Amino acid sequence: MDKLEKALDAYFDDMVKVRRYLHMHPELSFREYNTAKYIADFYKNLGVDVRTNVGGNGVVAKIKGGKPGKTVALRADFDALPIQDEKDVPYKSTVPGVMHACGHDGHTSVLLHVAKVLFEHKEELAGEYIMIHQHAEEYAPGGAKSMIEDGCLENVDVIFGTHLWATEPTGRILYRSGPIMAAADRFQISILGKGGHGAHPNMTKDSIVTAAQLVVQLQQIVSRKVDPLESAVVSVGRFNAGNAFNVISDRAELEGTVRTFSEEVRSQIEAEIEQVTKGVVLTNGSSYEYEFSRGYPAVVNHEAETEYLAAIAKDVPGVKEVVETAPSMGGEDFAYYLQHVKGTFFFTGAKPVNEEDAFPHHHPKFDIDERAMLIAAKTLLRASVLYQKTGEQLSEKKISV
Amino acid sequence: MDKLEKALDAYFDDMVKVRRYLHMHPELSFREYNTAKYIADFYKNLGVDVRTNVGGNGVVAKIKGGKPGKTVALRADFDALPIQDEKDVPYKSTVPGVMHACGHDGHTSVLLHVAKVLFEHKEELAGEYIMIHQHAEEYAPGGAKSMIEDGCLENVDVIFGTHLWATEPTGRILYRSGPIMAAADRFQISILGKGGHGAHPNMTKDSIVTAAQLVVQLQQIVSRKVDPLESAVVSVGRFNAGNAFNVISDRAELEGTVRTFSEEVRSQIEAEIEQVTKGVVLTNGSSYEYEFSRGYPAVVNHEAETEYLAAIAKDVPGVKEVVETAPSMGGEDFAYYLQHVKGTFFFTGAKPVNEEDAFPHHHPKFDIDERAMLIAAKTLLRASVLYQKTGEQLSEKKISV
Amino acid sequence: MDKLEKALDAYFDDMVKVRRYLHMHPELSFREYNTAKYIADFYKNLGVDVRTNVGGNGVVAKIKGGKPGKTVALRADFDALPIQDEKDVPYKSTVPGVMHACGHDGHTSVLLHVAKVLFEHKEELAGEYIMIHQHAEEYAPGGAKSMIEDGCLENVDVIFGTHLWATEPTGRILYRSGPIMAAADRFQISILGKGGHGAHPNMTKDSIVTAAQLVVQLQQIVSRKVDPLESAVVSVGRFNAGNAFNVISDRAELEGTVRTFSEEVRSQIEAEIEQVTKGVVLTNGSSYEYEFSRGYPAVVNHEAETEYLAAIAKDVPGVKEVVETAPSMGGEDFAYYLQHVKGTFFFTGAKPVNEEDAFPHHHPKFDIDERAMLIAAKTLLRASVLYQKTGEQLSEKKISV
Amino acid sequence: MDKLEKALDAYFDDMVKVRRYLHMHPELSFREYNTAKYIADFYKNLGVDVRTNVGGNGVVAKIKGGKPGKTVALRADFDALPIQDEKDVPYKSTVPGVMHACGHDGHTSVLLHVAKVLFEHKEELAGEYIMIHQHAEEYAPGGAKSMIEDGCLENVDVIFGTHLWATEPTGRILYRSGPIMAAADRFQISILGKGGHGAHPNMTKDSIVTAAQLVVQLQQIVSRKVDPLESAVVSVGRFNAGNAFNVISDRAELEGTVRTFSEEVRSQIEAEIEQVTKGVVLTNGSSYEYEFSRGYPAVVNHEAETEYLAAIAKDVPGVKEVVETAPSMGGEDFAYYLQHVKGTFFFTGAKPVNEEDAFPHHHPKFDIDERAMLIAAKTLLRASVLYQKTGEQLSEKKISV
Repeated sequence: MDKLEKALDAYFDDMVKVRRYLHMHPELSFREYNTAKYIADFYKNLGVDVRTNVGGNGVVAKIKGGKPGKTVALRADFDALPIQDEKDVPYKSTVPGVMHACGHDGHTSVLLHVAKVLFEHKEELAGEYIMIHQHAEEYAPGGAKSMIEDGCLENVDVIFGTHLWATEPTGRILYRSGPIMAAADRFQISILGKGGHGAHPNMTKDSIVTAAQLVVQLQQIVSRKVDPLESAVVSVGRFNAGNAFNVISDRAELEGTVRTFSEEVRSQIEAEIEQVTKGVVLTNGSSYEYEFSRGYPAVVNHEAETEYLAAIAKDVPGVKEVVETAPSMGGEDFAYYLQHVKGTFFFTGAKPVNEEDAFPHHHPKFDIDERAMLIAAKTLLRASVLYQKTGEQLSEKKISV
Repeated sequence: MDKLEKALDAYFDDMVKVRRYLHMHPELSFREYNTAKYIADFYKNLGVDVRTNVGGNGVVAKIKGGKPGKTVALRADFDALPIQDEKDVPYKSTVPGVMHACGHDGHTSVLLHVAKVLFEHKEELAGEYIMIHQHAEEYAPGGAKSMIEDGCLENVDVIFGTHLWATEPTGRILYRSGPIMAAADRFQISILGKGGHGAHPNMTKDSIVTAAQLVVQLQQIVSRKVDPLESAVVSVGRFNAGNAFNVISDRAELEGTVRTFSEEVRSQIEAEIEQVTKGVVLTNGSSYEYEFSRGYPAVVNHEAETEYLAAIAKDVPGVKEVVETAPSMGGEDFAYYLQHVKGTFFFTGAKPVNEEDAFPHHHPKFDIDERAMLIAAKTLLRASVLYQKTGEQLSEKKISV
Repeated sequence: MDKLEKALDAYFDDMVKVRRYLHMHPELSFREYNTAKYIADFYKNLGVDVRTNVGGNGVVAKIKGGKPGKTVALRADFDALPIQDEKDVPYKSTVPGVMHACGHDGHTSVLLHVAKVLFEHKEELAGEYIMIHQHAEEYAPGGAKSMIEDGCLENVDVIFGTHLWATEPTGRILYRSGPIMAAADRFQISILGKGGHGAHPNMTKDSIVTAAQLVVQLQQIVSRKVDPLESAVVSVGRFNAGNAFNVISDRAELEGTVRTFSEEVRSQIEAEIEQVTKGVVLTNGSSYEYEFSRGYPAVVNHEAETEYLAAIAKDVPGVKEVVETAPSMGGEDFAYYLQHVKGTFFFTGAKPVNEEDAFPHHHPKFDIDERAMLIAAKTLLRASVLYQKTGEQLSEKKISV
Repeated sequence: MDKLEKALDAYFDDMVKVRRYLHMHPELSFREYNTAKYIADFYKNLGVDVRTNVGGNGVVAKIKGGKPGKTVALRADFDALPIQDEKDVPYKSTVPGVMHACGHDGHTSVLLHVAKVLFEHKEELAGEYIMIHQHAEEYAPGGAKSMIEDGCLENVDVIFGTHLWATEPTGRILYRSGPIMAAADRFQISILGKGGHGAHPNMTKDSIVTAAQLVVQLQQIVSRKVDPLESAVVSVGRFNAGNAFNVISDRAELEGTVRTFSEEVRSQIEAEIEQVTKGVVLTNGSSYEYEFSRGYPAVVNHEAETEYLAAIAKDVPGVKEVVETAPSMGGEDFAYYLQHVKGTFFFTGAKPVNEEDAFPHHHPKFDIDERAMLIAAKTLLRASVLYQKTGEQLSEKKISV
């Protein structure tokens, strides 16, 4: 491992350069044409076998070791967000209203350089290494699903992925067996009442009053209907109804999100929202339209692979702490990979050193501590290479690496 | 009129005595046996033709004038209330927990003495006079309905009735054409959920949350569903659910009252309460039981008779003001008489002179200014006798009396 | 009267022409420059004394009778609405998106021809006649207020006004003493919460939930707080909050209208809305902004003048019925005139004969039965001329005309 | 261990006899005089050092091993419930309305016989063994607190306790590190409005409407205010207001329970309930009284001791499965012991073999599979004795027993 890690150290400056280049040239989900080309060119220049337009803008590179072994996939996403970069740094986004505000630029640079080191040492290595550069993580239905359908997981034995996590200090690795990120769904409800003059409510079916009752009663889904031992969120993010102060609106539009960790609770809430809606419109003699769009499912880490990752992470240079994390209510389409193959998704602490530079993900001033990229890279590298040595041990949950 | 009114003046002391006797011996609705006997005896002693047990404890006396004419009915109710008399007066109720707290003792004494004067002058009078002494006004279904079914309105051309009104000054007569008192109905709703441990709401259907939502949503019936030009009240007076702080109740009981002036609104509200209930239990997956018990309908005064009464009242000695009143949300089974014959119901101001003696109806310290009885008596007398002179005029709304 | 009414009959064709011309050339409130000029020119051509730019675009004409007498004002409004005319008639609006959808074109033509007849017979008439052509009735603060401030009511003894009423049949005059049209106010409430990620409601103060609770609780103002004998409406017409389904909105905007007939209830509701808002934001730890903008007050007709109008209207040729109307929850700035001088505002039935041509006011297919203009004209004329003969009689409410 | 376990096997019949005797003679919390005497006599007959009236009816026995070592406490509770026994078995409760419906009879018999075996082999054993027979677990403030204050944990190094769990099969041991049972608190809220006639809501402050709004809005505490990753329950179990259908109640009484696992969330909810109440009464112009009575805190198991218990349990004869359990929302005053010393509380499956005999705890037909007592006894015995051999290992979380 030592040699490989030293090689990574030597590429750290390149890693920063690549990340900053990407940071300056962000592209929105499903439109990451130049980024995909940049990634593909990187591999072509190295001489690595690369496949483009995988399930859309996805790019998959393959590196075969000199010895037989397992096939390990590593995944990095590369899309940006519709946010105006408000940082004052030389590598600030050059695209108005678009920004890498979630660290995907870092993920991409990390994976490119892990691949470079693997490629340069491939003769000594066992197994095969699949670099999955995924487009469109930020916007459902996401890129993971179509890349899987397009074969990116073929013959893969295990997958690892990480997210640079700007709210946790550099040097900390956060793992969790089981659900680590929530299922993130979206619902839309239209209340169809009957409009009329604001002075004559009795001639109308007031859609605003009905929708307001609905919002109030949706609260009881989490407070009364969901098992208190399960985590669940039902939030209405948008409520739009009416144009004039003195006209009763015939229509109210609600839109919201649901977050869950269990499929059972997810389906229960999908049904309960409709049940509450049905009751509220019955009360008011109105009707409704309801759409529940499933977003990414929960990211559910496999137990053995998670324990393996936690174990090997302790020895990664630069790692100070490996801690079990509470699950996050946020969503990730890494979830789909774990429905097909074993693996684990973990967080790599990347909080900027100065408190005044530290902002949450999706914030206009979001940035990362770039040194965390090296830790992420070394952890992924170690996880990939040492995985060849595991075997019966792992299935017995007795890891000794 | 002058002679008749003088005769009434002469009986004022008797009127007070009879009222005070009744005040000391109140009887609850449907149990007014002694009061009915007292009234019947009064007529028998005079030699007036009297019929007892009319539709229950009702008493009806008939006085035929010496000349042909119209048949005029006058009505007085005579039941008391389950209230403990807390006044400190010599004529305080002698029956624990029972009290004439609404002035029916006064109504009865007024009508007895009006009858006495009519009887003593019957030869000079035209027409016929029916004294309807009604039991059970305070408690639905009331006595009026059964007395009518038992024939008390046979051949009657017009009916007049008054209520001594302790919140208006003596000397004031209050009239209103159209609705003057509300329909007063009762509803009961049971929410049937599913009980369980307070720590496991998800295993239950929480009847308290459901019933609370119901109470909140019932508000929209008056605020959104009823024509704003109509008066209506929906009040929940009782909410009972659960016995233990840590057990979710399987059942919640609500009881309330509805007040309206129009039959259309009354029926609308009866239906809307059920509609809201249906919606709320659907939301919560519970079921319900609903009972709507109609009480007295609205007292709806006839226009010509009301204008007639307002006109003749101006000339009654002691009357200082004849004013149009807003309708009262209270109920009265005088309503039934006006569904069968023309007539009007009015209020006779009877507020005690000292502010510290003035209490609202149904209050444990309720009392009347007894001088108001004389005004009530003279108004009823004048209305009865002069009615013989009306005719075409009245139908043309040109009254000159 | 006969001669004057015959003169009006002779001008009926002109009346229709003028109305149709105005219908084809509608102008929005406060921008009625051409309409004002058209009216002024009409008077100038007749030789009538006319004052323009009264309180804005208002036009006031004055006709002095040959004999001394009272000063009677008649008012007609002349602004149009921001509605696209969808009728298929030759006199359809020629201005895209602007339309006389409330009959003000008819009001104007009626008043111009009443004036013409008065002017042509002025020598025979007593008193003085003021024609108030008011701009901007449809949009608060309206034109009435500024025209009054600019002196249009100087020396006026009485004012009459009518509204052509397309939901009542031609031949019917509708009057009402006391409140006939409601006070129409506007309120705006901003709920200021704290935004955040939809997955983390506990880090936010959810403004949509708070505003929804507010809408639900506003219902109790009418259902619990306002005297059930008073009419009142509180309607929320607009509810806007949030842009994204998965972001909790930091702000929710509500806008609505309040309708009342009594100043006391009006002020009570203004205060209650704030009280409910205060409570709801306290519950949620949010804050609020509240603005209550008073629109027109209630139109409160004077009793004697209303009875006078009802009495004289019976004899107007073409009038089949004179009926007392329930008040309308709509608003009118005629209210201001009645705060300064005695008078009455009434409705003149103008429903198109064919049911399929009859649409409510403010509807894109709104039209009137033009024959109703003649009835309106004759009623206003008769009311003006006969008013000279009233006097003591009117104050005694004994009108004989 | 083998010898000790065999000894327990030999006492199984006695164990059943003692349990059945206690089952037939149940006593309510804080009144367990005879049960306490029975326990004390059992120890006195054995010759074991016993202290009575510890913090009330508590009984503490002490057994000193022949060698030095750690002090291990074992706890069993012994109070019954106010429930009528409806089982049809020979050992049915003989006390009307009182019943061992939670298995405390079994706990007591288990501990008595564990003690007997320990005492009979004391010479071979290291350390000291404290038998804590606790009164009043079912009724706050419970017996644990006062027994601790009375010294029952003096010099204790570790404590173990178990609950026979009738909803899990015999042979299963359920453990959990961290919170395993919830904090169970109680709240009472009085809404103080202003009563009045049901027909005149505007003269009142309707306490039922206010309290209903409160119940509805309390839902948002769990749905919006508590971190979705935390478990919490707020249930209203009692809502009482009003006596008459047509009278608006001046007062509404609510009572409910709060369940939490973290002290932070517990305090947050205590404050939020008051915050919501404050807002709701402000909206309605009413006032309130609020009392929050803390019950038992959450039972929070210590990590090392729990892992130790889970490890040793696997080897207990009769144990088929040792599984991690989700926490229970129920409460237990074992919580207090764990605030003072290390230890763990676990569940011992005791579901009756025939499904038709299996009822939840606190059910009138509750019973246990008595064979589970032997498993509970052996697990406690093994946990106590082997604990002497742990040491550095345990603190390193590497247990090898």
